[in-house]
Amino acid sequence: MAMEGMSMTQMNPNSLNFSGGPGALPESVLQQVQQAIIAVPEVGLSVLGISHRSDWFAAVVAELERNIRSLLGLPDSYHVLLLQGGATQQFSMVPMTLLHGATAPADYLHTGYWSGKVLAEARREGPIRTLWSGQDSGFTRLPDDGELAFAADAPYLHYVSNETVEGLQFQRVLGRDDVPRVCDMSSDFLSKPCEAERFALIYAHAQKNIGPAGVTVVLVRDEVLAHAPDDLPGFLDYRSHVKAHSNFNTPPVFAIYVVLLVTRWLLNEVGGLHNMAARNAAKAELLYGVLDASDGYYRGRARVQDRSSMNVSFNLATPALEQQFLAEATAAGLSGLGGHRSVGGLRASLYNGLTLPAVEVLAGFMDDFRRKHA
Amino acid sequence: MAMEGMSMTQMNPNSLNFSGGPGALPESVLQQVQQAIIAVPEVGLSVLGISHRSDWFAAVVAELERNIRSLLGLPDSYHVLLLQGGATQQFSMVPMTLLHGATAPADYLHTGYWSGKVLAEARREGPIRTLWSGQDSGFTRLPDDGELAFAADAPYLHYVSNETVEGLQFQRVLGRDDVPRVCDMSSDFLSKPCEAERFALIYAHAQKNIGPAGVTVVLVRDEVLAHAPDDLPGFLDYRSHVKAHSNFNTPPVFAIYVVLLVTRWLLNEVGGLHNMAARNAAKAELLYGVLDASDGYYRGRARVQDRSSMNVSFNLATPALEQQFLAEATAAGLSGLGGHRSVGGLRASLYNGLTLPAVEVLAGFMDDFRRKHA
Repeated sequence: MAMEGMSMTQMNPNSLNFSGGPGALPESVLQQVQQAIIAVPEVGLSVLGISHRSDWFAAVVAELERNIRSLLGLPDSYHVLLLQGGATQQFSMVPMTLLHGATAPADYLHTGYWSGKVLAEARREGPIRTLWSGQDSGFTRLPDDGELAFAADAPYLHYVSNETVEGLQFQRVLGRDDVPRVCDMSSDFLSKPCEAERFALIYAHAQKNIGPAGVTVVLVRDEVLAHAPDDLPGFLDYRSHVKAHSNFNTPPVFAIYVVLLVTRWLLNEVGGLHNMAARNAAKAELLYGVLDASDGYYRGRARVQDRSSMNVSFNLATPALEQQFLAEATAAGLSGLGGHRSVGGLRASLYNGLTLPAVEVLAGFMDDFRRKHA
Repeated sequence: MAMEGMSMTQMNPNSLNFSGGPGALPESVLQQVQQAIIAVPEVGLSVLGISHRSDWFAAVVAELERNIRSLLGLPDSYHVLLLQGGATQQFSMVPMTLLHGATAPADYLHTGYWSGKVLAEARREGPIRTLWSGQDSGFTRLPDDGELAFAADAPYLHYVSNETVEGLQFQRVLGRDDVPRVCDMSSDFLSKPCEAERFALIYAHAQKNIGPAGVTVVLVRDEVLAHAPDDLPGFLDYRSHVKAHSNFNTPPVFAIYVVLLVTRWLLNEVGGLHNMAARNAAKAELLYGVLDASDGYYRGRARVQDRSSMNVSFNLATPALEQQFLAEATAAGLSGLGGHRSVGGLRASLYNGLTLPAVEVLAGFMDDFRRKHA
């Protein structure tokens, strides 16, 4: 299959991995990780066999925290925590903590597959109101400002910044400044600046833009924890993790080390989140351009102004043609392009580790496929 | 420093890592992991970027489950689960599940540092009785049968099979056959046969004998889950994980893959748990032999019949001499020999990945040190 521009033979398979997550990581990070499996340079031991109580690991956590603060311009009033259990654990920990003693319901937005999962878990823990749902519109768009009447007495507002399944991403910060904002940023955290200081609590699992599955970053403003209940199990109490510097019980040392390497890459190779955002925007523009120039052959799922720069979800005319697309893509070395099992179709995920040349290869493949099958 | 027998220059630093955990992994496993960081052989992609919803990962989970069943001779009536949150999460999940609706207290043994941690978390969830405590004897021994009056009406019995800090290990299965046994086997799981079918629930984090930190194996008899409460968050409900084949939310793919490689090593290179137990016994006998032949220079912490084959905890005459020991050991390439921060002293952990030649090097070092400093 002929390609224009970059030849696939110049790229290794990891570079052409468009998986929705766990996602591709930068090549330079993978090379450092490979070395660390045998010996972390400054220690001389495998990263898999170094104690979490070592000075080395305390320094890893401290540097990672500094790097995240630096990348986001995060004030000292926030704690940076590295937890297990994925975003799913946060779906419960947030209401367990912030709904304690609440009478008014918390405001939740239902904008797609993942915010639906959040709602199901949050409802167990206390009063919840669904402020807006995209269910009737098939989760093809996000709400406009006029559709959102945020409650002034809500204990907090919760939303998901980027819906990976549907490919919807908020381009603005939502909510009232007098109601704590809580945001699941799992799929666009550290892909761009995010005005972190406008949120009371941000959580993001690592396996999209910043590392392997197994660790979740939580940024939480100290004051939010003041009224947390006292009877939570230690591992579900943010304060246990604050007190223990994310070493309350054995943390996932390896995953945390990889996230550290990614933050070093963001700071030193990419040059910060403004540059990362520009790279991600260029990738997304290229791919949406292919959709928009295809005369409806490739049908984007999301309303144009709500398009995600992380996940480009699209369809072809028939499921059979989509299967053909996946088969030819796989044969051409392009992997991870199947849509989420809940919606089917196709999806290209363009996380931080995915390069513009890789998107150029995909764009070339898509143009070729259309010419061949239109 | 002269050594008898094996020269340290023949061994790489990972081989001489006596860390209490995360512990040393077998060299052949580390080599396969290193390869997988760039490309898992059968997939061609980095293990860090393969979707947890892929056929490959489903096969990883299925093979790992088969391997654990095979190693332990585990009946089909047990589920094999791979969870996040460490043993600490199990400290809470066990009583959340098994104390639901209980009126009589569960029996717990307090045999050292870790079973103390278990008790603190379990007490939040329901009625608990401390059947026996080693506190008065400074956790230097385990209970004899005559000291244990197990309650016939207890919802379950909980104990820790091996106390890593104190170096105490049960050499028998405790409890009544008509009361469900629950055991934290975090630090000796898959180090020897364990009569798994005599337990209702076994849990073990990976980072001692079977993998990196970040994944916990749970073996649970199906009937135990019949009366679990219905209002637990999904990630704290064993049944969610059963139903989802350990893929309820994004699992720690990397850590699970490493555990799979360790089980392959146990089956194919070691030849099963009887062989592994013989290897571990030989290592422990060698090291305890050094203690016993030292005329009290090296003072073992545990009562002789309760000695752990995993963790050899010992003292020298003074803390200053122990510091000298650690400094010289480090200079000689031997790492991880400091005792747990709660008790100090010295500790050599002899997990599955640690070889007999490594223990021979340590034994030689200890003999030399004694001759030099006695």
